[in-house]
Amino acid sequence: MSNDQKKAALDYHELPRPGKISVEITKSTTTQHDLAMAYSPGVAEPVRAIAEDPENAYRFTSKGNLVGVITDGTAILGLGNLGALASKPVMEGKGVLFKKFAGIDVFDIEVNSESSQAFIETVVRMAPTFGGINLEDIKGPECFEIEQAIASKLDIPVFHDDQHGTAIIISAGLLNALEVQKKQLSDCKIVIVGAGAAGIAAGHLLRALGMPKQNLLMVDSRGVIHSGRSDLNAYKHAFAVDSECRTLADAMKDADVFIGVSGPNILKAEMLASMADRPVVFALSNPDPEISPELAHQTRDDLIMATGRSDYPNQVNNVLCFPFLFRGALDVRASKINREMQIAAVHAIRNLAKEEVPAEVLQAYGVEKMEFGRDYIIPTPLDLRLIDVVSPAVAQAAIDTGVAQLDYPYSQFPPSHIFCR
Amino acid sequence: MSNDQKKAALDYHELPRPGKISVEITKSTTTQHDLAMAYSPGVAEPVRAIAEDPENAYRFTSKGNLVGVITDGTAILGLGNLGALASKPVMEGKGVLFKKFAGIDVFDIEVNSESSQAFIETVVRMAPTFGGINLEDIKGPECFEIEQAIASKLDIPVFHDDQHGTAIIISAGLLNALEVQKKQLSDCKIVIVGAGAAGIAAGHLLRALGMPKQNLLMVDSRGVIHSGRSDLNAYKHAFAVDSECRTLADAMKDADVFIGVSGPNILKAEMLASMADRPVVFALSNPDPEISPELAHQTRDDLIMATGRSDYPNQVNNVLCFPFLFRGALDVRASKINREMQIAAVHAIRNLAKEEVPAEVLQAYGVEKMEFGRDYIIPTPLDLRLIDVVSPAVAQAAIDTGVAQLDYPYSQFPPSHIFCR
Repeated sequence: MSNDQKKAALDYHELPRPGKISVEITKSTTTQHDLAMAYSPGVAEPVRAIAEDPENAYRFTSKGNLVGVITDGTAILGLGNLGALASKPVMEGKGVLFKKFAGIDVFDIEVNSESSQAFIETVVRMAPTFGGINLEDIKGPECFEIEQAIASKLDIPVFHDDQHGTAIIISAGLLNALEVQKKQLSDCKIVIVGAGAAGIAAGHLLRALGMPKQNLLMVDSRGVIHSGRSDLNAYKHAFAVDSECRTLADAMKDADVFIGVSGPNILKAEMLASMADRPVVFALSNPDPEISPELAHQTRDDLIMATGRSDYPNQVNNVLCFPFLFRGALDVRASKINREMQIAAVHAIRNLAKEEVPAEVLQAYGVEKMEFGRDYIIPTPLDLRLIDVVSPAVAQAAIDTGVAQLDYPYSQFPPSHIFCR
Repeated sequence: MSNDQKKAALDYHELPRPGKISVEITKSTTTQHDLAMAYSPGVAEPVRAIAEDPENAYRFTSKGNLVGVITDGTAILGLGNLGALASKPVMEGKGVLFKKFAGIDVFDIEVNSESSQAFIETVVRMAPTFGGINLEDIKGPECFEIEQAIASKLDIPVFHDDQHGTAIIISAGLLNALEVQKKQLSDCKIVIVGAGAAGIAAGHLLRALGMPKQNLLMVDSRGVIHSGRSDLNAYKHAFAVDSECRTLADAMKDADVFIGVSGPNILKAEMLASMADRPVVFALSNPDPEISPELAHQTRDDLIMATGRSDYPNQVNNVLCFPFLFRGALDVRASKINREMQIAAVHAIRNLAKEEVPAEVLQAYGVEKMEFGRDYIIPTPLDLRLIDVVSPAVAQAAIDTGVAQLDYPYSQFPPSHIFCR
């Protein structure tokens, strides 16, 4: 960003009042009678009702539409471990996106914890507050253990967006890119560079979608993750395969797909040139991709490319998923977000890219057309149809897999109307 | 409450949407440019600024106007230990009062903790989120240790309202009642019944206001707390005095002041009859006072009486204090709420009761007059002047005692205007 843009970003956060959110009262509080309902003595009634049946918390409090966006500040954006407090603008921003796109209320909570165990305990203890928990900006490999431990102790949806949100958008975009390139996921040779939260989660989700284990080479800072390596943690070890490849250049030869969630400019033109026909390159490092779109297109004209940036086609942006995924999960009061719900989101997002794009969306981006193909494999963030396709699909998957605590047909379900229409 | 009133209270909480609060976006999020400021990539700038200087969190996030209302659910209203979840309607309600009266944003957090230590750790770890912490509905004697431990580990205001909020209103009302009765606090014989959060805190605050230790008899469920008792915890022990009195009846003989924070109907007519001339009775058990106002006035016509109820004169109601106390503390970014700030609140509240009451306030209560005297020793909750007198007094006391991190004159200070005008 330019200095002017940096100044604009600071001003946006500071003026006319600090921050991006406020908490507002949704009931009348004008009269003494109102206050007697909102607080003493009226408030004793919902307290008693919840003490008798915890489910009543969903009737009488904000819990059911309230997500905790919680971090320990150990991996803020691409900036690293800057501590809990410094993450607050990001966490508030995440809350802004949850609200804007899906009508979900968010308390952002920045936790200063000395260990993974301390963080896990802290989140589990405060969980009665929330209807769901979105973990954010927690570094790997701790993030894997943290998410699993918290989810296993709670009966509300727990979701680490840096893992699964990214994996879902990558998968949706990749399935569409392969369709355009006339390839099958099950036949492709795939390379993922970056064995952190996003890379590991994308590997697992692609496997669940039909990619054979042997077809994926995962690459970390020491090279290809192969069976002979003795320096792998359990999360990386799950992707170790028998392979002669050792370097990224080795791995890229004849590869159909490159997925970069690592750092700038590591994909060289020669490597791209060595890929199979009609390759797919997702260069998601932000703001500087693994290979610049200009260099990539110069090197190969049979390429489909996606980045994490809004100023190039095919932006992989988590906001396409997390607000709507949680909307669906909250609406049927899912006790977790399971693989089937993630896959439902993948297909809902991918299929939307094949639908005709409404005029409002074209207008929002100032373009004349968006048509399924090389430069449009993923819907855009300002596509207001997302909530109508992703949330119901996720909710239905929750119902079908028995994790929904409310299981009447989603079409008859009122909360989306209450909260965001 | 009648069954109709109970139903109305449940409906108030449930319809048209569950709960009493929502989280709203305060900045524009209409365009792609807006979103680029609110989240990636713009949000990186305030993150960097806070990492460089933590003070910047007050410029670029909602922290400075955000109070955590936090409980473990061990002492919900007068209903007892019903667990964290059941407390949520009360905590949301507290947030509603903070917002309505002082423009303060509140995240209510319900903590399911297995011990005081676990609760303390949990609150301290999540503290970067907040500009202040209001502890609520935590049972005694654990509440004393919990508040002290949390406050000592943090540099933001920490306040257990059930202790100090109640103590401040009791003290303000009592000083005025004694003035009307033409008595001096330093000369009065005082009885406090109930050695829990409110009773202990009131004892300490009255001492700080000039009540000699020997003049107070504290009474718990086993009788008068005297030096000979071996069953006292440290918090009660601080109020043990040499006394021949053993029962409440013993203690009440010739007492000038009775303060009940215990349970219904424990103050008998004979005991009231045995008090000194021109007695003061604060019967604060709710909804059923220690003695009914009818019986009390029947027994003594030289009495001044206060209760916790809104349907009798002289309601002791914490909402007269906590929103404005926090407003003042947040406005000058106080690092704590010290005794001097509490005393400033006492005098500001008490003095307001001596001012002429504006027509709007009379109208809000549908009465023709409120004049300082027997039936009006405490301002009313809908008195909109409270924020103009209590907040500046608290802020000034913070400045005078060196705990304010912003110390320019309060009259020049903008946040109250930003947040609640």
